[in-house]
Parts: sequence; structure tokens; C-alpha cells
Amino acid sequence: MAKVQLVLNAGSSSLKFQVFVDDGADVPNRIYRGLFEGLGTEPHFKVKDHEGAVVGEERWPGHGGFGFEEALAYLSDWLAAHRGGHQLTAVGHRVVHGGPNYSHAVRLTPEVIAELDALSPLAPLHQPRSMEPIRIIARRVPGLPQIAAFDTAFHHTQPEIGQLFAIPQAITDAGVKRYGFHGLSYAYLATQFPKVDARLATGRVVAAHLGSGASLCGYEAGRSVATTMGFSALDGLMMGTRCGTIDAGVVFYLQREMGMSAAEAEHFLYTKCGLLGVSGISNDMRELREKAEAEPGAQRAIDLFVYRINREFGSLVAALGGVDGFVFTAGIGENDAATRADVLNAIRWAGFELDEDANLIGAGKITRGSGPQAYVIPTDEEWTIVREMRALMSREDESRTSAA
Amino acid sequence: MAKVQLVLNAGSSSLKFQVFVDDGADVPNRIYRGLFEGLGTEPHFKVKDHEGAVVGEERWPGHGGFGFEEALAYLSDWLAAHRGGHQLTAVGHRVVHGGPNYSHAVRLTPEVIAELDALSPLAPLHQPRSMEPIRIIARRVPGLPQIAAFDTAFHHTQPEIGQLFAIPQAITDAGVKRYGFHGLSYAYLATQFPKVDARLATGRVVAAHLGSGASLCGYEAGRSVATTMGFSALDGLMMGTRCGTIDAGVVFYLQREMGMSAAEAEHFLYTKCGLLGVSGISNDMRELREKAEAEPGAQRAIDLFVYRINREFGSLVAALGGVDGFVFTAGIGENDAATRADVLNAIRWAGFELDEDANLIGAGKITRGSGPQAYVIPTDEEWTIVREMRALMSREDESRTSAA
Repeated sequence: MAKVQLVLNAGSSSLKFQVFVDDGADVPNRIYRGLFEGLGTEPHFKVKDHEGAVVGEERWPGHGGFGFEEALAYLSDWLAAHRGGHQLTAVGHRVVHGGPNYSHAVRLTPEVIAELDALSPLAPLHQPRSMEPIRIIARRVPGLPQIAAFDTAFHHTQPEIGQLFAIPQAITDAGVKRYGFHGLSYAYLATQFPKVDARLATGRVVAAHLGSGASLCGYEAGRSVATTMGFSALDGLMMGTRCGTIDAGVVFYLQREMGMSAAEAEHFLYTKCGLLGVSGISNDMRELREKAEAEPGAQRAIDLFVYRINREFGSLVAALGGVDGFVFTAGIGENDAATRADVLNAIRWAGFELDEDANLIGAGKITRGSGPQAYVIPTDEEWTIVREMRALMSREDESRTSAA
Repeated sequence: MAKVQLVLNAGSSSLKFQVFVDDGADVPNRIYRGLFEGLGTEPHFKVKDHEGAVVGEERWPGHGGFGFEEALAYLSDWLAAHRGGHQLTAVGHRVVHGGPNYSHAVRLTPEVIAELDALSPLAPLHQPRSMEPIRIIARRVPGLPQIAAFDTAFHHTQPEIGQLFAIPQAITDAGVKRYGFHGLSYAYLATQFPKVDARLATGRVVAAHLGSGASLCGYEAGRSVATTMGFSALDGLMMGTRCGTIDAGVVFYLQREMGMSAAEAEHFLYTKCGLLGVSGISNDMRELREKAEAEPGAQRAIDLFVYRINREFGSLVAALGGVDGFVFTAGIGENDAATRADVLNAIRWAGFELDEDANLIGAGKITRGSGPQAYVIPTDEEWTIVREMRALMSREDESRTSAA
């Protein structure tokens, strides 16, 4: 049986996974990547091998009771039954919130699990969901090492001043700070900077993680200096269904004038706004691009999405004191040449010059001229997680050795 | 009796006023400027003539019942009894919110008053207070022409995209937009640009109105393109007691985890945050400067105030596509050389080079070098109001003449 490490990325109705050979190689050797989607409604399992060939697929039509528990049991059986079986040596999890303390991955002991559960008030929509697969595996396979890698951790290098809201110190100390998210993605990008362009690795870079969630990160020499998401994943850029930064006065208006409770207002701002809300059509940029000519709302949503990126980009340039490069990643960033072109035209004031032909190909450098350059770099959060897991486990080994 | 025009600026516990000769001169000829403060607690009246000499002062110790009604009666008597009396020909009011329709001053008919009252949900803390003196004067002196000039009006030139939140169109249409405030101050500054530097008048300028309320405005050729205050006066920069832009997730945290009602959270963010909240000491920049060496909280509050200005400045530079000048105004902007120096050092990345000696003098140009220049320009909101009032009345005269 091949020894493998499993990485899990739990979403609201999905469970993504990747399986890596546990061979101690510096570059993780991926053998499977797959997902369960439609959990709670129409579950669907699909897994591909390292060459992208579909090697497993299953559906459970109408099985609304099929959740993380059932998905993990199915995955365990599937792994046991394929290629002569796989022996799990460790599981790494994407956990949204590491709170003020965790700037690296952590071994999931009962104490740590309790500590991460206690962070739920900081991310009520995401943290409990992140913790569910951890609890299930701890119960099913008690001895199996589990680690958590955090979406917040990469931003621990932000200067203190950039993490503060203008609120009383006591509330800041209770944890109401700008943590930032998408850190597993930004950490991955930073590992690629030296391969792509030395100026990215040593200079001031703004990276745009543009998926259904979206944010920008400002890097200095590969470390996070500032990011657009703050205390919650609601802040910063306009997203698929989230409003991004919004005047607190609007929240009070929704409650006082529109009769929403706080919970209803929060649900509204997370799920009915952004591209979906402005367009009145869809949260999917592809659909909006198709309909932009016929539907003014679709074009307006795209325009606002780009406008907000430019504004937040300017704010990050201020935090960095200038900019030497720009990076696009995630669903929209990797695949939507039209949005990339719109963004690069909007930030032309900072010296970027779109290379239209390169942008249509959509890989590598997509600008020209003597100013700062922009790149497309596909992201890989699970790669960050498995690397963090291995780094943690080897630090643990070393400290055991030196203690012996 | 001299014919005069009165300008009123009603605050939460104060009533500022200025009196101008109604002589048709292009440059308003001010004869008095004064204020009532401590309304509702320890009322105090003080008035100076055009040379700054105190020509009237009165106190009503412990007279908590002395409000706008009593202040206006006293002012009317005072004006009647001085310099052979004054005949009021018109009253101009600063009104916080003009809503989506008013991009200029408006004559206060009963219909318009009702319309402005109906905007109170957009500015619940300020609009009702703005309307009070209007109603009192309409009752006391029914025939006296009254006009309103709006803090929102100057920002009507913002492009539509800059006024949008990423929310459904129906809620935008109900009036939930980025209006911007401090417009009477920004409009005044724009009138001074041509006298100060032609590049300000024709180029891209960021002006900082830094008082107990604070905001930035981005101008292109003297017109507002973007501003940091949005739907409410809570948004944008950190202020004396207001938080400025804050993650909506924090608003929900205050309600869910700290047990505040929406009204309590709103009151908290307006009155307990900003410089006061972060320092734990004071909302007064002068006091914080004095205590900054001994009290880390005071220095942290100052640092965050400056950091937030730099970030929002960057966002406005993005909206403008570059920057040709910077202007400081209002209490802190006009009087606090240390904050001006901190801000100019923070925005050095955009090419500004502080002239330390000129900054200490604190008037005119305070930068040097070949880059964009920064200036101190004292603001005068009442001057804008009286000019708007005269422009409106002469438009009315013209339309009467042409109709005749």
C-alpha cells in the first residue's frame, strides 16, 4: 500500500481533496485531485489522476442526507479500493481562521481543536464548517495525524498599524482586527515569484485572487504587507455575491429602514449582493460577459467590479509606497482575459501596459513596456497546505530528536 | 437699517452663524461671524466683527432648555440692537443631505422642506437637526426667504460608478448610494484653486478636510470625482470619535457577540471610536500630540489616522488616474503642522516633498521640488452658502424677468 497524505478543503456545500505521495520529496507529488459537490442536495463525486484523467465518479441523486460524514467514508473506501490501496499517513485541512496566534500550520490536538472552535465568532459562516471534517476524522481514525493550515496565517506579517480598526483597544484585543484571508493562495503565489520574475520576489507586488471570493494582497519581498479582506470575508473587493467594503451606515439602514435583523442583513450582504446583486442576473462573470451587450445591469456589475479593484489597488500601492508588479490568479484571474484587460487598463496610471496578445493566451507575462509587469499565475492552495504540513511535521521530528 | 443676509450652520449642540452685507458684491462682505455652543447644557454666545474683534458675548449658565429656538430669538434681538439694526433679507442654511436630486442650493418652500425631512433616514443623526432652524424661522418670520445649501451637492459630479455600492439596483434606487459630505468646504476650496496654483484648477487634486469630521475629496479640474465619505458621515477616514471605513463584519460582531442593538452599535461607531477610541485619551489631536511621547495609545491613534489617510489617498489617486496636487484644510489641516508633515511623508511615494520650514508657517505652499505640490487653504463653508444663495436668487430673478 502506498503511503499518502490527504488534503481537505471544506466549503459550504463542497469538499475538495487532493492526495499526495508521502515520499519526502521537496516538490509534492500529487496523485489525485477531486471533489464532492452538491452536499446536502444532489451529491456528486469526481476524482482525476495527476494527468487530469477522470478515474472515479459517482452520484447520489436526491440524497440530501449525504454530508461530510458520508463523503469522508466514501473517500476512505475509494482510496482503499484503488491502485492496491493507500495508507493515509496524515491529513491536512484548510481552516479559514487561525485567529491572532497562528502564523503557521498547527497539529490538531483536542486542545487546538477547542481553541479553533472558539474562533467561530470571528468567522461564523466559515469556521464551524472548516472544523467539521476534522472532528469526523478524529472520531473515525483517532491516531491519524491531522494538521490545520490557515487562510489568515500568511497575513501575520502585516504591520500592526495595518491590522487595526479605529476602535477602542479593548475590542481590538478581543480579536477585532484585520486578519485577511486567501492566505493559502497568496502563500503559494509567493513561492512562484522567484521562478517568474526576480522583481516579484524582491519588490512590491499586488496580487489579485479573483474567484467567487475575491481579494487583493500587497507584498513586499514576498511577504504580506496589506490585504483587502479584513476582519471578515465580506470586506474589500466586490465579489460574486458579497458586497465588499460597504459604509457601516448602510448596514444600519438595512436594519432600521428595511426591517432586517442583524442576521438577515449579514446573510443579505454575503449572498444577494456583489455581481449578482448589481447585475440582477448572475454571480458568474462568464454569464455576465455573455449578456453584457444586451443587459445594462451585467455591464454595470462588471464595471463596478473593475472600478473597485482599481480603487483598492491604489490603496495597496499607498501601503507599499509604490508597485513593481501585478499578479492575477483564481477562477476569474486565471481564465477571464476580458476582466484582466479591463483591470490592466484601469491601473494603467501606475505604469502597466497591457499586451493584448499575451493576455489572450493567458499565461505568464501579459504586459509589455518598461514599467511594472503583470502576470497570470494559477494558484494551488492544497499545495501550500501539504507543504505546510510537511514543514510542521519535520519541525516536530527535529524537536523530538534534539530533545532525545 | 443695513440689509444683511444670514448664514446658519446647525450642529448637534452648536449653531454657527455669519452675517453678510446684502450689497450684491461678487465677493461676499462679511460683517459678523459667531456661534452659540453648549446648547442643551451650558449655552454660550460669542460674536466677532469682520476684523476678529469680539463684539458680543453672553452665557446662560445651567440653562439646559436654551436651544435653537432661544438662540435664534436672541440673535434676532442682538442684530436689531446693533449698529442701528439690521434688516434680514434672506437666510441660508447648511443642510447635510440633499439626497439624489439637489446638486445646487434650493429655495425652502413647504414642499421642499417636506422633501428634505423625508431624507432623514439617509442621515438620521444630522438631517433632523439641520431642519430645525429652518422650521423655527419659517414660523417666526413667514415671509423671509430661506435657502438650503447641501454638503452632498458638490459631489453630484462623481461618475455613476463611483456612487454605487455592490448591492441590488432596487436598494440603490431607494437612495443607498455614495453621496459624500463636506461638499460646502470642498466647493469653497475649488473657488480658491485658480488663485493658488493653476495646476490645482486644471489638474487632479486630493483635498483633505481634517476636522473632528474628516474626509478626502478627489478633484479633476475643480470637480469632485470621488470622496471618502459615502452613504453616511461614518465612512472613509478615521475621525475624532468616528471609526471611518470598517468591515461590515465588525458591525455584526458588535451586535451578535457584544450584545449591542443596531442603534447602540451605530452610536458606538459614531461617538466612541476614532482618535478617542484608539487612544483611550482624547478625540482632540492637540491633546494627543502633547501626550504622544508618554502615552503609546496617543501615538498609535495618530499613526493610524495618518496611515488611513495614506490608504484612502491611494484609492483616490487610482480614481483620478494620478495626482497633481494636495490641499489641507479645516481644524487639523489648517493648524497642525505635525500631522501635515506626517501625511506628506506618508504620501511621498506619489512625489510630494515636504518643505519643513514652509509647513511650520502653515500657509500657502508647503512642499518643494519638481513633483506635485501641497498647499494649506483655510476653508469657509459659510462663504460657499452665501454665494450659492445669491446665485440661486439671481437665477430666480432672471427666470422671473424672462417669464415676464
